[in-house]
Amino acid sequence: MKNLWIVEEQGFHKEGIADNGNRFLIGNGYMGIRGTLDEFTKEQLVAINLAGIYDKVGDGWREPLNAPNPIYTVLHVDGEKYGVLEKEAIEHTVTLNFREAVLCRKTVFQTQKGNVTFQATRFLNMENPHLIHAQYEVICDFDADVEFRTGIDIDVWDIYGPHFEKYECGQEQIFSVKASIQEEREQVWVLEKTQGAGNETVLKENDKLLRVFSYRAVKGETAVFTKQCAIYTSKDKELAAGNLTINIDDLFAKDMEAAYEKEKAEHIAWWEEKWNTSQVVIDGDDEAMCALNYSLYHLHSIAPRHSDSLSIAARGLSGQTYKGAVFWDTEMFILDFFLYTEPSVAKTLLKYRIDTLDGARQKAKDYGYQGAFYAWESQEGGFDACSDYNVTDVFTGRPMRTYFKDKQIHISAAIVSGIMRYVEHTKDYSVLEEGGIETIVECARFYYSLLIKKVNGAVYELHDVIGPDEYHERVNNNGYTNRMAKYSFEKAYELLSNVEKFSESTQKKLAEKFDVSALKEEFKDAAENIYIPAPNEEGVIEQFDGYLGLEDVSVEEVRKRLLHEKEYWGGAYGVASHTQIIKQADVVTWLTLFANEFSKEVLAKNWEYYEPRTEHGSSLSACMYAWLACINGYPEKAYPFFLKSAMADLKGGGKQWAGLVYIGGTHPAASGGAYMNAIHGFAGVSFEDGKIKVNPVLPPNWKSMKFTVSYQSKQYAIEINGKKSTVTEL
Amino acid sequence: MKNLWIVEEQGFHKEGIADNGNRFLIGNGYMGIRGTLDEFTKEQLVAINLAGIYDKVGDGWREPLNAPNPIYTVLHVDGEKYGVLEKEAIEHTVTLNFREAVLCRKTVFQTQKGNVTFQATRFLNMENPHLIHAQYEVICDFDADVEFRTGIDIDVWDIYGPHFEKYECGQEQIFSVKASIQEEREQVWVLEKTQGAGNETVLKENDKLLRVFSYRAVKGETAVFTKQCAIYTSKDKELAAGNLTINIDDLFAKDMEAAYEKEKAEHIAWWEEKWNTSQVVIDGDDEAMCALNYSLYHLHSIAPRHSDSLSIAARGLSGQTYKGAVFWDTEMFILDFFLYTEPSVAKTLLKYRIDTLDGARQKAKDYGYQGAFYAWESQEGGFDACSDYNVTDVFTGRPMRTYFKDKQIHISAAIVSGIMRYVEHTKDYSVLEEGGIETIVECARFYYSLLIKKVNGAVYELHDVIGPDEYHERVNNNGYTNRMAKYSFEKAYELLSNVEKFSESTQKKLAEKFDVSALKEEFKDAAENIYIPAPNEEGVIEQFDGYLGLEDVSVEEVRKRLLHEKEYWGGAYGVASHTQIIKQADVVTWLTLFANEFSKEVLAKNWEYYEPRTEHGSSLSACMYAWLACINGYPEKAYPFFLKSAMADLKGGGKQWAGLVYIGGTHPAASGGAYMNAIHGFAGVSFEDGKIKVNPVLPPNWKSMKFTVSYQSKQYAIEINGKKSTVTEL
Repeated sequence: MKNLWIVEEQGFHKEGIADNGNRFLIGNGYMGIRGTLDEFTKEQLVAINLAGIYDKVGDGWREPLNAPNPIYTVLHVDGEKYGVLEKEAIEHTVTLNFREAVLCRKTVFQTQKGNVTFQATRFLNMENPHLIHAQYEVICDFDADVEFRTGIDIDVWDIYGPHFEKYECGQEQIFSVKASIQEEREQVWVLEKTQGAGNETVLKENDKLLRVFSYRAVKGETAVFTKQCAIYTSKDKELAAGNLTINIDDLFAKDMEAAYEKEKAEHIAWWEEKWNTSQVVIDGDDEAMCALNYSLYHLHSIAPRHSDSLSIAARGLSGQTYKGAVFWDTEMFILDFFLYTEPSVAKTLLKYRIDTLDGARQKAKDYGYQGAFYAWESQEGGFDACSDYNVTDVFTGRPMRTYFKDKQIHISAAIVSGIMRYVEHTKDYSVLEEGGIETIVECARFYYSLLIKKVNGAVYELHDVIGPDEYHERVNNNGYTNRMAKYSFEKAYELLSNVEKFSESTQKKLAEKFDVSALKEEFKDAAENIYIPAPNEEGVIEQFDGYLGLEDVSVEEVRKRLLHEKEYWGGAYGVASHTQIIKQADVVTWLTLFANEFSKEVLAKNWEYYEPRTEHGSSLSACMYAWLACINGYPEKAYPFFLKSAMADLKGGGKQWAGLVYIGGTHPAASGGAYMNAIHGFAGVSFEDGKIKVNPVLPPNWKSMKFTVSYQSKQYAIEINGKKSTVTEL
Repeated sequence: MKNLWIVEEQGFHKEGIADNGNRFLIGNGYMGIRGTLDEFTKEQLVAINLAGIYDKVGDGWREPLNAPNPIYTVLHVDGEKYGVLEKEAIEHTVTLNFREAVLCRKTVFQTQKGNVTFQATRFLNMENPHLIHAQYEVICDFDADVEFRTGIDIDVWDIYGPHFEKYECGQEQIFSVKASIQEEREQVWVLEKTQGAGNETVLKENDKLLRVFSYRAVKGETAVFTKQCAIYTSKDKELAAGNLTINIDDLFAKDMEAAYEKEKAEHIAWWEEKWNTSQVVIDGDDEAMCALNYSLYHLHSIAPRHSDSLSIAARGLSGQTYKGAVFWDTEMFILDFFLYTEPSVAKTLLKYRIDTLDGARQKAKDYGYQGAFYAWESQEGGFDACSDYNVTDVFTGRPMRTYFKDKQIHISAAIVSGIMRYVEHTKDYSVLEEGGIETIVECARFYYSLLIKKVNGAVYELHDVIGPDEYHERVNNNGYTNRMAKYSFEKAYELLSNVEKFSESTQKKLAEKFDVSALKEEFKDAAENIYIPAPNEEGVIEQFDGYLGLEDVSVEEVRKRLLHEKEYWGGAYGVASHTQIIKQADVVTWLTLFANEFSKEVLAKNWEYYEPRTEHGSSLSACMYAWLACINGYPEKAYPFFLKSAMADLKGGGKQWAGLVYIGGTHPAASGGAYMNAIHGFAGVSFEDGKIKVNPVLPPNWKSMKFTVSYQSKQYAIEINGKKSTVTEL
């Protein structure tokens, strides 16, 4: 029987290098190691991507740091280098067991004298997130002179680098490389130790600090090398004033091989425990089950468990794409998974937003608004990494003025939604006391300061915005945005109306900062009077003022109008801009999140209207269509969209390059979306007043589903068989 | 001494054909005949451009009609055709006496036997605007067989044609061509008669209906041919149900040569009389005097004296460029000349706007506004000929979404300004009674319906507009626009506050249509509370919200960024769009028109700030800079801008082609601007409470200025000598 927890690639295919870097990624929230091969260098997009530490070089984009690579390893046999790029492998298998989160590679090279087998295994420590573990085996089926070279590759892959300007290398028993960016604002310290067969010497060549284990291989015998690495950055408490405050020797066991076995067993146990509370078992659809749990593997791998205030970047820890920045993806697409399986991580994600409130306040102020305008592309401190010129015109090579940063105001409401969903789901009010309530009030104040009224108008409007569908810029009254602003007013009003339920210090803080009763009035008025587009006679809700008057044309027709395969569909003159073709779910996202406010007919009508007009040019799109189709009772319509989300990283492909810039990476929002589809959509789980409701609409071939959810500090096992379901408290 | 009323070109230069078509234009308000040569056809941009009659073919732009050309004439000598395109001319002179408005051409061709001299004279009847007069002389300095071929060239030059689908030709003594557009909605009827030497036969070839006068030329003797043509269109009362209602024979004298002499003398006398009340005499600067009066010649030539409700197109009667449409140019740049020299024409121009009020109401309604939103490019009935895609992207060949039509809202205020300036200058209230007051109220209602208020804002704002500087689209609170809206509120309020001074029928009409007292309240409130940007600490007024935060860079630097000489500087991604470089006077236009509301320092500061940041990419720009420089007391700064305006058509050049589309033509707004510079600027004439004030700031070399102005039904001679001035009632 096929192991549903294995992703495997047989044979080496050069064109798959970039995709495999994502597909075989391992991560522990602190770092992500792209699934590249041991002998690869930056040309093959090797990256040990670090969470929450950034740098900017010159006019380039500010992006997260990649660490020097301490698992660089290459084999020399009888004086010749053996790697997949130089020599043809007669056998080559890369295997990710994502239940265990262990990556193995096995390659057999043919030499004139016989075959050489090289195996490597790597995993990341989940308890001590600084540690990388690896083990290598070399077997020659002939006697040979072998050099096993391994160490730290200092020549790091960057998109807008190089970031490190200075390196200090220590070549003691433990290798160390301290890499510093300009003016030593940040440092990354990489330690490496390897034990193994043969005579060990040190080699420095081409930005690599290597150990060379030289030995005479005996036919058929296995040589084992065991490695452990540690990474610290200036963001860590272990690194102070440019020096490590820990005893390095304590990190490395004397007998590394024994320690490795112990760590590996603990590692597998750690993951097994995670799966106990997070796996989704689907009987009748192995493909879906594999893809879904593989998606959850990625979410687990990037969860910032080592911090109590850190979020997840839009491309996870797969590299520097999208500047390692945090988008609305986290709150709207990723959060639910952690909310239902590991609420402490959900709180960490939200604390990041609360702790970057000052950045959001500063952004609002810079634009002349009040309250908190969260960063569209948030880096540390809430710094908005989004550029005013985020797209390059393929026809002129010029940067195009884009408005993601200044007009996509729905971002602040996503934070409100994230915090409130956390509070409502967990009944843990600490996040509100720890700044959450202030954050929500500031977001509502932000929207309030944006409200305008026509002189003879009865309603408040929000003009000149971009909704989730980024292909239409600078529109008025985007329904999703208006509804989310209304939601922010409602939630802020609700909290301020119950302010006496919070601690005295919170009450005092609010009273000091705000005129609470005036704000209550304002938010109530705003919530009641903000304009929310209503369905027209056909039941269709206009995405924004004037949308239905735009050219009504098919996605295919619009695609045919492209003059350049990489040209931007949106902006002022894009092929989609003046048509009804949209990038991603927009009205459908609104209707999905507020489904109980609409009739079944309206929900269905809008799905039918917008789906054929959606390019699905964002990985945030498919899951919303899948979810709403389930709400509408059409699992078979939902299924392909669900699978698209769940397979986003497994299948690979998609846009990897924009000119010479790598834009590929993993898609945590699609992973989170697939989870929401399974739980909210097919399983039909919802939470209300302390009760779990289950209204399943399983796809025809799904015989049963099993999973657990956390709700208000309790664990529940949910089992669905066809239309029947049971909820059991654990 | 050089005749300051002559424009002459010696020698034939092929590359000057398009420019000369404008430079040597003759017109009488009903039609304009481009200054092309007799033997030219549509390839040389021959056009008899008709006022106020339009057609649209397929997806092309709607444009005015050009009539079949009844002055097509070519000479054959000894069987060979003699025209400047075929044969080299040993002498060639084109002379426009613009005091007399008579165009002459003289060409001497060399043949193997001797020289042939061809002379042609043409002028347009100013009393009967349907008539064209021409006379030709042929002299051979050897005996020769001559064919003088003349008649109607039916193959009309069009930009978005062909418009005429059907022709009916009559070949009686009087030639006639009735050209009809699709479905015979419109007709153009061209009549032609020529008398002259020789044996006359008829020749139809290649869309030409020709008379051939064949004769044996005697060495040195002059053969004379006299022509008269008439043009009627279905817009004329003389053409009803597709037939002429007049007796054609009555139009043509028996002795055409004698009649020609009489008409010519009357023509010159007519013009002499015009110059008596309109010429500007400048002592000390012949170049300026010639250029200025030449500009006035053009304004006289396009004044719609044959109608009581017609306006002037942005390119006058020089062709189909800019769709023959009426822009804000008329009210803001052209009107003053007629106001001060021929107020009846000024009234005709304004009546056109009043009579197209329904079109403006419809446009407002179509956009969801109230009141009257005048057409940005107005054709008959107020139809807005402006396209949503008015510019072609040179890089992709795609039409670019432009916002001239929907966002350049300052157009309606230009109508208010035109009507009120007419009323205030003439004290003739008839224009208000004849719909003017309703027009102004509707324009104010339009602006009122556009006002928005931020929820916590104290002022009304106008968002998402384009000001005079079209390079910056979709801006908020353009100062010029806001001030002009305020002006509209003020004037509407003023009129409604004095409603009892109007006729009972007008009062009744207003009361029926509007809640007058409610409107008064609204307009007063709006005028008091609309946001008007104030000077910053440096005295600079921001052109629109955020303008001063844009990249501050020189025009030259921005020009260097062009990748294509014809690329559009504005739009979403133009080289100027995200810089402070502007197309034309914007804040400076505002400050010029409302100079009394600002300190001298602010006026000067803003001139100095904006001038180096202005590309002057519009012929409406220079005159505003000249005018404001005069107000500031710097005639030497004003002078080059004045001369640029005055020479716009005399000098020619400038942009003539946009790809394959001809965009050249005359520049009546520049002509009108030059007049305003002379009268308001250098002469410093202003009108207040029935009095004429003169505060001259003559350029150093201008010894004196003399001109007359009409004010409140009286004529005044104004004479300026240095700083001294006299005003004499005539």
